[in-house]
Amino acid sequence: MHAIAFIQDLAVIMLVAGMVTILFHRFKQPVVLGYIVAGFIIGPHTPPFELIHDEETIKTLAELGVIFLMFCLGLEFSLAKLFKVGATAFIAAFLEIVLMIWIGYEIGSYFGWKTMDSLFLGAILAISSTTIIVKALSDLKMKNERFAQLIFGVLIVEDILGIGIIALLSGIAVSGSVETGEVFATVGKLTLFMIVALVIGILLVPRLLAYVAKFESNEMLLVTVLGLCFGFCLLVVKLEYSMVLGAFLIGAIMAESRQLMQIERLIEPVRDMFSAIFFVAIGLLIDPKVLVEYAWPIVVITLAVVLGKMVSCGLGAFIAGNDGRTSLRVGMGLSQIGEFSFIIAALGITLQVTSNFLYPVAVAVSAITTLLTPYLIRAADPLSIKLAKAMPRPLARVFGYYGDWLRSIQPQGQSAVLAGMIRKILLQVMVNLALVVAIFLGSAYFAGTLAEYLSEWVASPNLQKALIWGGALLLSLPFLIAAYRKLKALSMLLAEMGVTPDKAGRHTERVRKVIAEVIPLLSLLGIMLLLMALSASILPTLELLVLIALLAAGVSALLWRWLIRVHSRMQIALMETLEQSQDQHHR
Amino acid sequence: MHAIAFIQDLAVIMLVAGMVTILFHRFKQPVVLGYIVAGFIIGPHTPPFELIHDEETIKTLAELGVIFLMFCLGLEFSLAKLFKVGATAFIAAFLEIVLMIWIGYEIGSYFGWKTMDSLFLGAILAISSTTIIVKALSDLKMKNERFAQLIFGVLIVEDILGIGIIALLSGIAVSGSVETGEVFATVGKLTLFMIVALVIGILLVPRLLAYVAKFESNEMLLVTVLGLCFGFCLLVVKLEYSMVLGAFLIGAIMAESRQLMQIERLIEPVRDMFSAIFFVAIGLLIDPKVLVEYAWPIVVITLAVVLGKMVSCGLGAFIAGNDGRTSLRVGMGLSQIGEFSFIIAALGITLQVTSNFLYPVAVAVSAITTLLTPYLIRAADPLSIKLAKAMPRPLARVFGYYGDWLRSIQPQGQSAVLAGMIRKILLQVMVNLALVVAIFLGSAYFAGTLAEYLSEWVASPNLQKALIWGGALLLSLPFLIAAYRKLKALSMLLAEMGVTPDKAGRHTERVRKVIAEVIPLLSLLGIMLLLMALSASILPTLELLVLIALLAAGVSALLWRWLIRVHSRMQIALMETLEQSQDQHHR
Repeated sequence: MHAIAFIQDLAVIMLVAGMVTILFHRFKQPVVLGYIVAGFIIGPHTPPFELIHDEETIKTLAELGVIFLMFCLGLEFSLAKLFKVGATAFIAAFLEIVLMIWIGYEIGSYFGWKTMDSLFLGAILAISSTTIIVKALSDLKMKNERFAQLIFGVLIVEDILGIGIIALLSGIAVSGSVETGEVFATVGKLTLFMIVALVIGILLVPRLLAYVAKFESNEMLLVTVLGLCFGFCLLVVKLEYSMVLGAFLIGAIMAESRQLMQIERLIEPVRDMFSAIFFVAIGLLIDPKVLVEYAWPIVVITLAVVLGKMVSCGLGAFIAGNDGRTSLRVGMGLSQIGEFSFIIAALGITLQVTSNFLYPVAVAVSAITTLLTPYLIRAADPLSIKLAKAMPRPLARVFGYYGDWLRSIQPQGQSAVLAGMIRKILLQVMVNLALVVAIFLGSAYFAGTLAEYLSEWVASPNLQKALIWGGALLLSLPFLIAAYRKLKALSMLLAEMGVTPDKAGRHTERVRKVIAEVIPLLSLLGIMLLLMALSASILPTLELLVLIALLAAGVSALLWRWLIRVHSRMQIALMETLEQSQDQHHR
Repeated sequence: MHAIAFIQDLAVIMLVAGMVTILFHRFKQPVVLGYIVAGFIIGPHTPPFELIHDEETIKTLAELGVIFLMFCLGLEFSLAKLFKVGATAFIAAFLEIVLMIWIGYEIGSYFGWKTMDSLFLGAILAISSTTIIVKALSDLKMKNERFAQLIFGVLIVEDILGIGIIALLSGIAVSGSVETGEVFATVGKLTLFMIVALVIGILLVPRLLAYVAKFESNEMLLVTVLGLCFGFCLLVVKLEYSMVLGAFLIGAIMAESRQLMQIERLIEPVRDMFSAIFFVAIGLLIDPKVLVEYAWPIVVITLAVVLGKMVSCGLGAFIAGNDGRTSLRVGMGLSQIGEFSFIIAALGITLQVTSNFLYPVAVAVSAITTLLTPYLIRAADPLSIKLAKAMPRPLARVFGYYGDWLRSIQPQGQSAVLAGMIRKILLQVMVNLALVVAIFLGSAYFAGTLAEYLSEWVASPNLQKALIWGGALLLSLPFLIAAYRKLKALSMLLAEMGVTPDKAGRHTERVRKVIAEVIPLLSLLGIMLLLMALSASILPTLELLVLIALLAAGVSALLWRWLIRVHSRMQIALMETLEQSQDQHHR
């Protein structure tokens, strides 16, 4: 009976994992490490005998563990939080990731590893471990201090950038090359996909969940959540992105639902079960022989992680305007690698582009840096005091000036309000344009299928194209009009600010009006050209295009108010969902 | 990538299950039926195309669903509840199961099916569906009425007897024959195993769970619970019982833990996920062609289930002393088959003793009877009024007399207290003896391994045997002494009651004393003979046996008080656990 072997595997995994984690907990070490050690104990590389029969099924379940881990990360993520963490988090995370990828790549090259191994090593080192940090900070009872809040901000940005790294690595592994143009195209497409998925998802999913929640059945809600989660992962895979991305995105979408707390409560046991299997499966892969063979690289990489992250995150925090002590604490708190590294290492194996030793090396480095984390956090304060004493006076003064200068250039009072408004308008324009671009890309993608349907009524391919293109334009109209109106508001604002009476004298009003009219029209023209480039494959002949444009203009003129109303209703629905969920995120 | 096919399967299962169950919920039908219909839709027998790629993995996960279902059934079970439900539940459940197995067997034989098919059909029809009944009664808001409480009692006894049926069927399927002696041996061994597992389990598991719960980590508690659950299932499988039995037993053991509520909250989402897969997997097996081909048997079996259960359960409830109306409501409430039937049908397939058509037939009958359940419950009251009117006067009077007679023979006042005491003592003796029997059977089972260890020090096989047998006796001493003391108390009680001064005159005291001494000694002698028979394979020579017996007597005399203290400490620990958990079972 196949099932008995499977139950036996599960029994061994859970029993050993349970015992080891209890031991680890007693000695105040993270549970995650316990799982990995448990996997190592029952793994094929350690005596006395092979305890796992069906490694293939366990690995499949471990994949589910990754999905649930990323899904829960998404649930804990929130757009509102992302907007709040501000510059510090962005700068520190970006600096950290770029620097660590570079350091990792250089280390790999130094040891003479394959290009792909070095690249993946860089990616493995790039992202710190949320679980480990949360665990360490709550053990040390420092969760509510300012530097801890900064660390959480950096982690959120890291998650987003990490998703991007995974998408990029998948692309590079498939194509086998790194080209700047390709990178930009990948990042662009990824951003587009994420914006569209988030907008559509936040419009639909929380409403569906609220409907199911009305039945007051935990079971139905869970099945719906799992269906949406796996279904979305599948969609993302069909679009040739990683499942991990899908799980994170659908989690972030559900984070905006009113049922968030209930979903978290229901999904947590499921995640705990499968993530335990995931971490044990990591331990299964550890071969002590590999660890001995690669002892030297492991030491070097561990040092690189600790020092590299300390410097890059600390520097990032400092550049963004924090004092030296806080910056050092942020840097030392982030000095480890964890679950994201395992996911990236697993990606390399799945895509068959990395060597076998990379995974165990990553696990070993993660284990050592995880063990170091609490000591590093505790050592940050004494170290900052020592550093401050040892620093030469002039250097300290320069650092002080930097902080003062930074504060002086920050927009204050009215200009801060204005800057906020401009940022908000630009964001709205971007979201609307992203939706338009998605509509056109989508029509181009489905043009073949659509043309086949249309061929029953319309014979000429040109007319078919015209109909498809026209349909896409019609669908885009509400978003185009909204973008145009936002841009107009923005240019009026800019005209008001830029063209002052003491510069333009009595022409002030006229110049302002011209600027306020010309900028949005020009940008709209630019957008249309971009759209045409994007939808080159379904572009009809010029005459038809002019005809469509005229038609669209006519429709816009006739339905202007109605289109605006449609758009604003969507926008209100979106904002309501976001605000409702924001009330819930009091965590 | 294998994992993507797997995720796709899960996505399809959860999405379709989610949609269908929402539809079913809207039309007030049980969610379980929705799952089965969802499985039917995505199954291989329905167009448009095969939606599941890896049926094998799904079936393995469905096995997990069975384990979690039975585990949760065990969690909801409680020994205290079992003792409370009393005679009604036992009589009704026993009558129902015997009658339904017979009816099922006869129907199978009538249609000319194989003996094994007929036997499994009987077992499939024997047990009603807890989930369906709970759902229907709470929908009808009748959960707290008296007849509903009786139904729940019957369901608890059914679960226990059902576990026995599964063990018996497995035995019969392997040996291929039904012999009375074998049946008794199987039931005896099963009872023994259950008692020993419960006593040891309740002594150890709640303590372990309380220890883990101190760490206040849901994750660790869940992993421990899962480890114990799978580990115990594995142990049970090694002893050649069904995994289902193991899951139920370990659930019943954990039901006595203080962490019960927490465990239920953690395990519910996991159960919901896997039981959804289980029910969908059932739907996958439905082949419409089989349903059409077996339409006639399905109709006959459905009628047999409804009428048979109505009569057997109703009669059982009536015999146990309930009025006609309540009895009819109990009978009509239990008129369906459900998850237990699927488990038994699946057992037949796994053991490869039943034909392929049996499973879909069982599912079809279950679906129809499930749909009928709420209507039957609602129809019970009008029907009982009509029956009462239509019944001839004399018959009604006979029924009335039966009730009066039953009430008159029930022990009242002091004799009721005495009956309760005797019952309690007998139960304690039985538990102690079961443990002794288990120790001897265990030593006989492991004699080979033990002898190998001993052979390093002791050469003679006879001496080895003597050591093993003596060790078993030593281990049993506390339980033997406890059983002896309970028996002594019982015989004193009986002597006090049976030998009254008006019968024995001035010899009263002496006769009482003789009876109080002789009965326990005789029963102890009987026990020893039984033990020797059970441990025939490890029995040493007579001289050694006498030596051991003398030694044991010496040890008993020397350590009498200490042995009693050891035993009473264990008993107190057990009782405390049971009482603590009883406070929690306020559901």
